[in-house]
This record gives sequence, structure tokens and C-alpha cells, in this order.
Amino acid sequence: MSNIITLTSDYGLKDFYVGAMKAAMLEIAPNANLVDISHAIPPQDIMTGAWVVRNAAFLYPKNTVHLVVIDPTVGSDRNPIIVKINHQYFVGPDNGLFSLLIDEPVTEAIKITNPKYWRKDRSKTFDGRDLFGPVAAHLHQGVPMGEFGEPLEEIMEYHWAKPISDKSGIQGWVLHIDSFGNLITNISKELIDKTIPNKNVKIYVGTAILKRIVSTYSDEQDGNPVAYIGSSGMLEVAINKGNAAELLGISQGAQISIVVQK
Amino acid sequence: MSNIITLTSDYGLKDFYVGAMKAAMLEIAPNANLVDISHAIPPQDIMTGAWVVRNAAFLYPKNTVHLVVIDPTVGSDRNPIIVKINHQYFVGPDNGLFSLLIDEPVTEAIKITNPKYWRKDRSKTFDGRDLFGPVAAHLHQGVPMGEFGEPLEEIMEYHWAKPISDKSGIQGWVLHIDSFGNLITNISKELIDKTIPNKNVKIYVGTAILKRIVSTYSDEQDGNPVAYIGSSGMLEVAINKGNAAELLGISQGAQISIVVQK
Amino acid sequence: MSNIITLTSDYGLKDFYVGAMKAAMLEIAPNANLVDISHAIPPQDIMTGAWVVRNAAFLYPKNTVHLVVIDPTVGSDRNPIIVKINHQYFVGPDNGLFSLLIDEPVTEAIKITNPKYWRKDRSKTFDGRDLFGPVAAHLHQGVPMGEFGEPLEEIMEYHWAKPISDKSGIQGWVLHIDSFGNLITNISKELIDKTIPNKNVKIYVGTAILKRIVSTYSDEQDGNPVAYIGSSGMLEVAINKGNAAELLGISQGAQISIVVQK
Repeated sequence: MSNIITLTSDYGLKDFYVGAMKAAMLEIAPNANLVDISHAIPPQDIMTGAWVVRNAAFLYPKNTVHLVVIDPTVGSDRNPIIVKINHQYFVGPDNGLFSLLIDEPVTEAIKITNPKYWRKDRSKTFDGRDLFGPVAAHLHQGVPMGEFGEPLEEIMEYHWAKPISDKSGIQGWVLHIDSFGNLITNISKELIDKTIPNKNVKIYVGTAILKRIVSTYSDEQDGNPVAYIGSSGMLEVAINKGNAAELLGISQGAQISIVVQK
Repeated sequence: MSNIITLTSDYGLKDFYVGAMKAAMLEIAPNANLVDISHAIPPQDIMTGAWVVRNAAFLYPKNTVHLVVIDPTVGSDRNPIIVKINHQYFVGPDNGLFSLLIDEPVTEAIKITNPKYWRKDRSKTFDGRDLFGPVAAHLHQGVPMGEFGEPLEEIMEYHWAKPISDKSGIQGWVLHIDSFGNLITNISKELIDKTIPNKNVKIYVGTAILKRIVSTYSDEQDGNPVAYIGSSGMLEVAINKGNAAELLGISQGAQISIVVQK
Repeated sequence: MSNIITLTSDYGLKDFYVGAMKAAMLEIAPNANLVDISHAIPPQDIMTGAWVVRNAAFLYPKNTVHLVVIDPTVGSDRNPIIVKINHQYFVGPDNGLFSLLIDEPVTEAIKITNPKYWRKDRSKTFDGRDLFGPVAAHLHQGVPMGEFGEPLEEIMEYHWAKPISDKSGIQGWVLHIDSFGNLITNISKELIDKTIPNKNVKIYVGTAILKRIVSTYSDEQDGNPVAYIGSSGMLEVAINKGNAAELLGISQGAQISIVVQK
């Protein structure tokens, strides 16, 4: 095991939830290095949580434990699970999030059923403190994955919206807007390379029309919109030194069209 | 001593205050594990700070040092103090916050008077960096509590608003609204069990009337209000998959009534 | 080297950027103590970033590495640099920020050119993960500063707006507004001591006129404006138990005048 446990949640930064969850973890794994990825995922927003975890978790050392608690169905009969993907362990509720972390099906999953590794007096509304935190800490301490419960054939599957493409171009959507106001789309570099090898395009997004895909912000003048392949490998649209979401009037889910030019 | 020092403040996340306070602490206790509970307590909001610390601090290992700096009267003659409650140490200003951490009076307190453990050149407006941080770090390093000053008979007492109850029901208030918009009240599970053993109730809060107390969010349909005992042991009202504070138009301090049904 | 690496950025708290940058660092320096100063610097705001780093970094142990990534010109030909100031190492883009950390010119700087210490497959838009994070981690591990590139004669120079003073008084500006709404000005204690030794003044700021400089908030009644020397050594204006920026209608950059009284 790596010495790190990463934490991602929608618990926010102004409440006791993160501090209580960390206490429950440090009691079990006092020497673990707890690294926050984010606790400011919008409440109950599984897609945003998956986006953030997908782009950070796989950069950590092999066999790192990743605690991910975005849990709108806490207290229901949804399963608590551990999944292993590409030598990384993920602990959290089975609500679709983990299926969004890779493009292939998840094959290694455990349904957590063994209360030996939970907090006594589990509440009905705070499994981060009472179940997921303790399980992540025990897993980090070396308890084998199989000890926590029984194998699960299939986890809940969610799907990222897939872009539509033909020889005339690509139709995609804005997946995520970051804190700079940059628009991250679901159109990958690979799809663009395959569909439009010569990159002769017009890109329509909100009130803007862009005539080329460039390398980085400063390839356009300050204040102008820029289309480029971002650090997660997807097409992004930004305003050089500005906020694209605000200036182009774009929200998450907005349409973006790449039209091939003759 | 535990190896952990927890930190709670209203210093916010966009300024140099937290970074400067941690520097002053790490100079004295370079191997301490600094765990942030929250630095986003609303400015000068002693009640919210007490709520957050109360629900997180006592889950930490025995003899953990908890630094709590919400300090609207910094620079005045208010006392800097150390209090010990249930095998946990708390360091901060004597402004009522620490009295809110337990329901009994605090009996073990020190007024900090020994400048040996402060930063040289103490400013008049930043005791987190200049006094409380260093004292917490020295305490963590093993300096006995009595070394920092002299025993204090009584600390400043604040009180949580107490609910009013009789055979017809319970009248309480919304203590806290969390980042999901859940309404946490000052009505405890114990009071409900004692006053209304059969749980046959109507609950009035904002624009909503609820007809029962359930176990968890998903006991009501999505979008419906839910009353349940939360993870801190108090009655809460939420909207299943929604924001109760916004949808019911509720602010902190709002009234909630539980009326016994025949 | 100190065991600490501090981190400051404008990456925000709700995205994968900080988590990915830390992964890249911990891969190289698994035992480093990563201490966040702030990741909530307003997007691309070099002056605010410099203000925060200037007031926190120099309190850390000698030979601490400080990673500072506010990088509006990422992907352009701006230089990545390491600078050493007062026994502290700073790693980030050469865009003026580092020149604002001290009042003298920076004399020890390296232009980072050696890709051996970068992440493979450096992207064009995320040097925090791909270059600055790895360089900071290698520097912390003991790689000598000179190994990363070649000496740089001069870094980009930005200047804080300087107050104007004569025998009739001082004209300055609000540099920064903190999360309490306190107004931090560019007028230093030293300048006031030199210009107005007897401190007999009127201070004009927004809609308020203050008649004296006091020691701390509580020297004025609750709700009244207060002028005092803050914890960073500069004149500040606050409202005792209130938010001065809101109540006086002041934004960053606003003018403040100290007029000598006969």
C-alpha cells in the first residue's frame, strides 16, 4: 500500500463533516498521509465528482486508497463498495460514480458487508465518518480487500454523454466548467484526430465562432476565445486572460459543434 | 499527547492568515500532524465555530490539541486560555466558544500569561500567529498546561438556546444550516424520546408540515421534506436530494414546532 | 532543506488541479510535508498572490521550498524559474509575482530549462502538474538549484503602487481586502512614523473620516471604523465587529488619505 489516502467529497469546507471523517480515519491509521483532492464538489453531483477523481487519482502511487463520498442515497439500500481499477483502490457508495472513472467496465469490486471494520453506532446519514472512512483506513493498514465483504459482479453503471460525429464534424457537450471559467468538453483529442485530421474547422459554442484549434491560451490575443486540447486530453474553450463561461454565457451541458471546412 | 493538532478558524481560505499561523506552529512542532477542521467559519461567528468543533473534536485521539481561533475581541483584555475537556486540550480566546462544547461547566482552565511561549513582537490583531498557534505547538510538544499561566476559576459562559417542551409538544430552533441546506435543530433525540415516546407528531417548519420522523432521507420520495435524527444526535429537516434551506425559505434561527397528535 | 513544501495557486478548491499537482509532487518526494497556503487566490491575480505569499512564506523554516503557481501566461514563452530570497526557495512562472515579495531586487534566479526534472508529456496548459510541482519536489529532495537550468540575470519586475507623501500628509491605496472585510493599505508603519511623528491626523477613506490611529479593533466601539497598524506592518481600516469593505463601500484600489492636523 502507498502511505497516502486521498479524500474527495461534497461535504463542503465550513462544516464538521470532513474533520469528523478524518478523526475516524486517523484513529485507525494514525500515520496515513491524508491528501484532500476536493471537498467542494457541488452537493450530490456525481458527475463532477467523477470528473475530478478521474483526472487526479490515477496519478497517485500504485495501491493508493481513494475515499470518495458523494452519497445522495446514504441510508438507503445502496451498496457500500470497494473497487480496484488500474492498481488503485476506491472506497465509497455504489451510485454510478466509480463506473465513470474509466471507459471499460469495472471488474474488481467488493460489496462491503462486514461491520467489524465500521464505527460502532453507525448513523443513518453519515457513512463518511461511520463506514467509508474507517474502511478506507483499515484497507490502508493492510486488511485485504476480500475481508470487507463479498465479491460484486457488477457495479452501477453511469455513462458520460458521448459526442456524435460523422464526416461533416463533431457534436459534443460541455462536461465541466473549472474555476477559471474554462469550458471542458467531452470531445477527446483522439476523436478530433480521427475525424478531422487536417484540423480545418469552425467551432460554434455559445455566442462565439472559433476558426482553429491552437496549442495554448496565448496563441490568441488577450480577451479572445481559444480552443485547445486541455490537460485532461479533451477539447477545451477558454478566453485568454478571461472567464469563458461568463463572457460566452455558457453553462454545464451546453452544446459545442465542430464543423469541418472544405 | 496525540501527534495531531487540529485547526479551526474564521480566517478564510484566500488569505495569508492560515499559512502564517501554520508556519509559527511548525517552527515549534515540526513533526506535528496539522489537521484542518475548518477555516471557513463565518467571520466572528462563535456559535457556528462551537457547533463545528463540538461535533468533530471529541472524535480525535485522547490528548489531542485543538486550536480554535474565532476571535472578534483580539487585542482587547479578553483572556487567552487553554481548557481541558474530556481528555482533549483546546487553545483559543475566552469568548464563550469553549463553554458551548459541552453541556456541563468547564472545570479545568488556564489563563495564558507566560510570554515565554509566544512569538516575539506579538501584534495586536493576529494572536493566531503570535500567541495561540505557538502555545498550541508547545503544548503538543509536551509543555505542561500549568506552565502557560495560572488557573482560571470560570471561563466565559455562553448557552445554546434550549428548546421548550410540555405534553403538547416541543418548540425549538434551527441551530445550523449545512452545505447541503439541511436544517439542524436544537431538539435532541433524548428530548423527543422523553416527550413524545410514540412519535405521533406533526412538525411545522417554514412552509412545510411533516407528519413523521423517519430514519433517513430516502424514507421520503425525492423532493419531499424529511425529518430524522442526524449524525450529531439532533433532529434535522432536509429535502431528499434537494436543498431544504432554499426550498423551504429557512434561515438560521428559524422556529420549528413539534406538535403531539392524539 | 526543510521538510516542508508550501503551495499557493489560483487553481480553486473544487477541481482536480490541486490533487493532480500534489500527486506529481508526492511521487518524487513521498515524505514531504505539503502545506497549503492558499489555492483560492482569485484567478490570474498576481498581486493578491504576491501579497499572500509575501506575508506567509518568510515565516517558514530556512530553506523551505515554496511552490507558487498563478500562471496566466502558461504555454507562452514566459520563463519557468526558481528564485532564492532570504534563504527561501520559490518555484513558479516569471510573471512579476516574485519581484513583489521583497522591496529589493531579486539577485539569485535560475531559468528552468532541464526537462530531466519535468513530467513526461508536459501539457501546454498545466505546468503546476507537469513542471513546477515536479521541480519543487526535486529541489526539496536535494537537487541543487543550478541543476535545473541556467542563471537568469533579471526576473520580470512588478512594483507595488507607492504611497505619495509630503508634510501635509500621505496618499495611499487599498492593496487588499481580507475575508473579514478589513482594508489593508500600502501605507507602512515606517512611513507614518517618519511623516507624522505626532500622529495627529484625519484619515479619509470611502464614506468615513477617522480621527486617530489606534492599537486594535476594540479601541473603538462596536460598529465604528478603526485605523490601526495590522499584522503585516501596514495601515489597515476595519469596522469593529463588522465588515469595512461592505459598510464603507470600498473596493481594492480605493484611495485613502491621511491629512496632518495642526
